[in-house]
Amino acid sequence: MTTVGILGGGQLGSMLGTALLDLGAEVRFYEPDPDAPAARRFRDVTQAPWTDEKALAQFAARCDVVTYEMEHVEISEGLRALADTTRLCPSLRVLATAQDRALEKAHLAANALPHASFEVARGKAEAARVAAQFPLPFIVKTARGGYDGKGQSFVKDADGARALTFDDDTVYVFEEALDLVLEVSCIVGRDAAGAAVVFPTFENVHAEHILDVTLVPARLPSALRAALEDTARRMADSLDVVGLLTVEFFVTKAGSSRSRGVPVGELEFFVNEIAPRPHNSGHVTRKACSLSQFELLARILLGVPLTKPELLGPATYVMGNLLGDVWLDQSAALEDLDLRAVANFPDVDEVVLYGKREARRRRKMGHFICHAPAPETAVARARAFREALRRTSST
Amino acid sequence: MTTVGILGGGQLGSMLGTALLDLGAEVRFYEPDPDAPAARRFRDVTQAPWTDEKALAQFAARCDVVTYEMEHVEISEGLRALADTTRLCPSLRVLATAQDRALEKAHLAANALPHASFEVARGKAEAARVAAQFPLPFIVKTARGGYDGKGQSFVKDADGARALTFDDDTVYVFEEALDLVLEVSCIVGRDAAGAAVVFPTFENVHAEHILDVTLVPARLPSALRAALEDTARRMADSLDVVGLLTVEFFVTKAGSSRSRGVPVGELEFFVNEIAPRPHNSGHVTRKACSLSQFELLARILLGVPLTKPELLGPATYVMGNLLGDVWLDQSAALEDLDLRAVANFPDVDEVVLYGKREARRRRKMGHFICHAPAPETAVARARAFREALRRTSST
Repeated sequence: MTTVGILGGGQLGSMLGTALLDLGAEVRFYEPDPDAPAARRFRDVTQAPWTDEKALAQFAARCDVVTYEMEHVEISEGLRALADTTRLCPSLRVLATAQDRALEKAHLAANALPHASFEVARGKAEAARVAAQFPLPFIVKTARGGYDGKGQSFVKDADGARALTFDDDTVYVFEEALDLVLEVSCIVGRDAAGAAVVFPTFENVHAEHILDVTLVPARLPSALRAALEDTARRMADSLDVVGLLTVEFFVTKAGSSRSRGVPVGELEFFVNEIAPRPHNSGHVTRKACSLSQFELLARILLGVPLTKPELLGPATYVMGNLLGDVWLDQSAALEDLDLRAVANFPDVDEVVLYGKREARRRRKMGHFICHAPAPETAVARARAFREALRRTSST
Repeated sequence: MTTVGILGGGQLGSMLGTALLDLGAEVRFYEPDPDAPAARRFRDVTQAPWTDEKALAQFAARCDVVTYEMEHVEISEGLRALADTTRLCPSLRVLATAQDRALEKAHLAANALPHASFEVARGKAEAARVAAQFPLPFIVKTARGGYDGKGQSFVKDADGARALTFDDDTVYVFEEALDLVLEVSCIVGRDAAGAAVVFPTFENVHAEHILDVTLVPARLPSALRAALEDTARRMADSLDVVGLLTVEFFVTKAGSSRSRGVPVGELEFFVNEIAPRPHNSGHVTRKACSLSQFELLARILLGVPLTKPELLGPATYVMGNLLGDVWLDQSAALEDLDLRAVANFPDVDEVVLYGKREARRRRKMGHFICHAPAPETAVARARAFREALRRTSST
């Protein structure tokens, strides 16, 4: 029996845990927060800080293979030691690249993978100098630590550029602000022998920098989807990923920027960023595809052969995030979400609540999946369902 | 937050546990076996014998609602006390009816629900008398305790009837042996307000009295399927079931027996038996339907409204059981099942291994689900996949 260790006990780790157990594996979690979703649910959870080298070493000694559910785990001495003594999938190199936008961009450039024009600046003086001359409009991001729009600014004119402030011990990435037609993501699963399969392209709609809904299949010509999936696979190959690699893309009108993407017909695409793990957008695969992202990763970690995940039917599936806002809108005092609204939504295929102890605005607390024959209807139904949930009163 | 107690920690309880946790519930298991699937997986498992009244009472005190994953839990003093102090779903009356074939048949007769002609005999002398005069061919079953063909005999002639032996403290049910065209099952979900939904009819193929494969949709005219689903719903209504009720049916040629079933066109059907819980045949809903049997039961237990589970696509889905035989055929010494055979089966949508510690012949150790455009192809692919698994050698 293979024992898999999962660093992180959030919703992604928990869903992976279930998929692994279903394939007969033993599963252990490492998670600092005693209230994390996995800690509520699973038997074998080591609760210790990321900095506890001894606890990490003891954890690793009890696992045949270790993976992680988020890329913001610090590459500490403890983690390096773990990767030296245990199989870590994806590798430390992949993790290091994914958690640093400067390394990520350098990797894209070195491997001729399409990306927005960028410049890296280290510290205050260099950042100020780049800000003054980088072609407008641009986006400036901290190289490390940001997600869901944290740590980034959109700068449209010279006044905006002058108003920026920088820190001395921080690395910044400046990149051309592209005029997006839409955002999409591809998830690649790649095994130790280098065999790879790619999920059908997801279309992602954001609201205030947080993923709002994901549609599959994406509303794009099939030639473009094929090119995206091929690029995602090349990205996974270039990093020798063993596990999942989520590749997020920007799609623009062809020739609408000074950056050099991959043009397909009237459109052009660029890699935005990567995540070497299951991804929020990939939840849609739980109901839309013959294999979910979690089932695919479980196969990779256990050495079970991969088969291509297919769409189950002709419908469009939509995954919608449930943020803490939905809980707070129902009633600030309410610990449970009232789900009576599902009565009018037979097209809602699942609602998953992650079991987080506290609802906060913008916090991902759950998701749902629905389907409809046409993409516009599916998105409208998803929005209507979430609106109905928000309006449900428990009184 | 609602806390749900599950009596029994086998595969059915484990899958229900995951569905409940996904809807935000707290879940506790009660299970005597420390090696049961749920004990390997979940955090909150009370390990104590069924006869431990104190442990059962303490368990019940920590739950808002309690359900059970198998109907062979003994109706002990402890369980009666639990049902008095906690909400037990389905009720003790449903459980008592389902675990006793004599009560079950009496209920069918009293509610004008179609069934094979039967006679109940208590003890040795009465059973011998009934055996001598019951019209041949017949099946005789112990009223309690049998499943997967245990405790039943098929008797085709007078020699067979004379060869039967009976015990004095046992109740027997004699019933007409029907000439089956096929066996099907329907799962009804019914909530506390009496609202009920029925899954599409499943077709079940048995091998040596154990479920071999389940197909959905069943290869039957739609008028017959509608009548089956309606009868299953009436059965659930008649018992005031709050939870799931699986109703197993026999389908024969119309007029081919002396029993009185429901004729629809050239066919006729009879209720065979019931199970007030998720069912082996219902695993197919995990991939074939918009809601699984576990998701539906979780909704009922948590008071979330029901919507009708629909087939996801036009394909036929097949669930195949994996018995201990598959493990033993690979290698008696092997603890894990070698799954390399999936490489050639992209149409296999899931393989679930239950995590039982010991593989025994005829023991249900796991299942898989596959799909194909036509039912015959789907069944052939399921059989081919299982055969490929059996032939896999780990050397």
